[in-house]
Amino acid sequence: MSVLGGIEAGGSKWECAVGTGPDDLHALETIPTTTPVETIDRVASFFERAGPVASIGIGSFGPVDADPDSPTWGYITSTPKPGWANTSVAQEMRSRLSVPVAFDTDVNAAALGEHRWGAAQGLDTFCYVTVGTGIGGGGMAGGKLLHGFGHPEFGHMRIPHDLELDPFSGACPFHGDCWEGLASGRALEQRWGRSPAELDGDARVWNLQAHYLALGLVSVVYVLSPERILIGGGVMRHPDLLSLVQREVGRLMNGYQDVPAIMLPALSPRSGVLGALALAQSAPA
Amino acid sequence: MSVLGGIEAGGSKWECAVGTGPDDLHALETIPTTTPVETIDRVASFFERAGPVASIGIGSFGPVDADPDSPTWGYITSTPKPGWANTSVAQEMRSRLSVPVAFDTDVNAAALGEHRWGAAQGLDTFCYVTVGTGIGGGGMAGGKLLHGFGHPEFGHMRIPHDLELDPFSGACPFHGDCWEGLASGRALEQRWGRSPAELDGDARVWNLQAHYLALGLVSVVYVLSPERILIGGGVMRHPDLLSLVQREVGRLMNGYQDVPAIMLPALSPRSGVLGALALAQSAPA
Repeated sequence: MSVLGGIEAGGSKWECAVGTGPDDLHALETIPTTTPVETIDRVASFFERAGPVASIGIGSFGPVDADPDSPTWGYITSTPKPGWANTSVAQEMRSRLSVPVAFDTDVNAAALGEHRWGAAQGLDTFCYVTVGTGIGGGGMAGGKLLHGFGHPEFGHMRIPHDLELDPFSGACPFHGDCWEGLASGRALEQRWGRSPAELDGDARVWNLQAHYLALGLVSVVYVLSPERILIGGGVMRHPDLLSLVQREVGRLMNGYQDVPAIMLPALSPRSGVLGALALAQSAPA
Repeated sequence: MSVLGGIEAGGSKWECAVGTGPDDLHALETIPTTTPVETIDRVASFFERAGPVASIGIGSFGPVDADPDSPTWGYITSTPKPGWANTSVAQEMRSRLSVPVAFDTDVNAAALGEHRWGAAQGLDTFCYVTVGTGIGGGGMAGGKLLHGFGHPEFGHMRIPHDLELDPFSGACPFHGDCWEGLASGRALEQRWGRSPAELDGDARVWNLQAHYLALGLVSVVYVLSPERILIGGGVMRHPDLLSLVQREVGRLMNGYQDVPAIMLPALSPRSGVLGALALAQSAPA
């Protein structure tokens, strides 16, 4: 099997890897996200040193243009991240390194990684949700990564919000109290004035957090009917949160349908970069 | 092309057709939904008279078991409709008529019909939503009908509900104020004490209705990223509702992503029975 390159392009860091899979990574490097020019240059230099690779897969923060027929394929498009709107990532990397490049969202890449080597092996229809600074979601339906008009943006669904119980107006610059606006790490920090790590042990915080996460997952269940839900990201590292979320999803669904399994990703924290490596195999020659 | 049979099995009536497509229907019959035994018997008799057919497709109200590997494949399962829980539909029809039978939800069948002959031709990823007595949803992702752990149940997503603006507690026996609980025809009737047809001209009614419908569609957009949303059913016959919904979806998405086209189904009110006919082509021999 050819040696491949994988890039998980994140808002705070880019994880880069060279290898063929989780048990065969020749090189790994974490590069901080600064300006587009500097970041892409440092990533390209890593592959020049660690390569050669037959192709590269990129899973990127977004929103992105993942339509191979679009002139702006491989761009990060309307991100609010300063300096990064309308940045060519995949085309730039392809011309710098002269190798085929495949491109998708960070969460679809992570879903692909979990499908190939992790907790979604053998499944046709599942989703991958990450709860970090923001909330992202991707996955597969019928054995194919989710794409359509654009790509999924689970984090921007609207969910019920009882302003008497929780007067926090939400952290999303576009929608205020959408799912991400209420349940991301950024929302936790803004609501309580402390980082998620400093909130350990406060049951009120984590019960509300589980409630919000479950409300969004219920919508995902009823739209996509996933065989399994993988949910990761920094916020999910809170020790009780997964079981609180599982219980709350069951309570909200109230026996109407069976509740699909909800579990942590198996490859975490490398689901994304390994998924990018898996994505590289589909790069057009 | 073989002559096929299609059945849209609904909670109030079953639509039956024999033919090869929308321009070639040899026979059509509407049979009221009474008891399972009587209804299925009358439907089987129709096909005995109108046939022979090479195979039959059934799109059914649900929840259903659409897993071909399940012993209860083709059953209506946990429906609250009296007398209909755990009813064998597809297996019963197959043994009565000795023809291959394909089975799916009513909304997936309608989506397939629109894909073959209607407003979703050429699309890979789209959804079909019906707003009638309840709310149902189906569609395709990556060119395949949506299936997973079970099947989609769009109507049971949770959406924001401002109890000060709308103190109605919701019409869903399982979830109270889920999407269907707030925005179905049954909800309209229970909230306002009049049938949807009697509510024409009351802007307050239809603005609130459009708001609720849009909140659910936004979740569908962010999970599935459909290239197009087809939305039909009796409630959508209100003359201004589609344009109110289109505007409200745009307002809620607030420029974060482009808004997919939202339109009425092209084959309405025969999307379901024609889709069932299309489904018949995939019946296993």
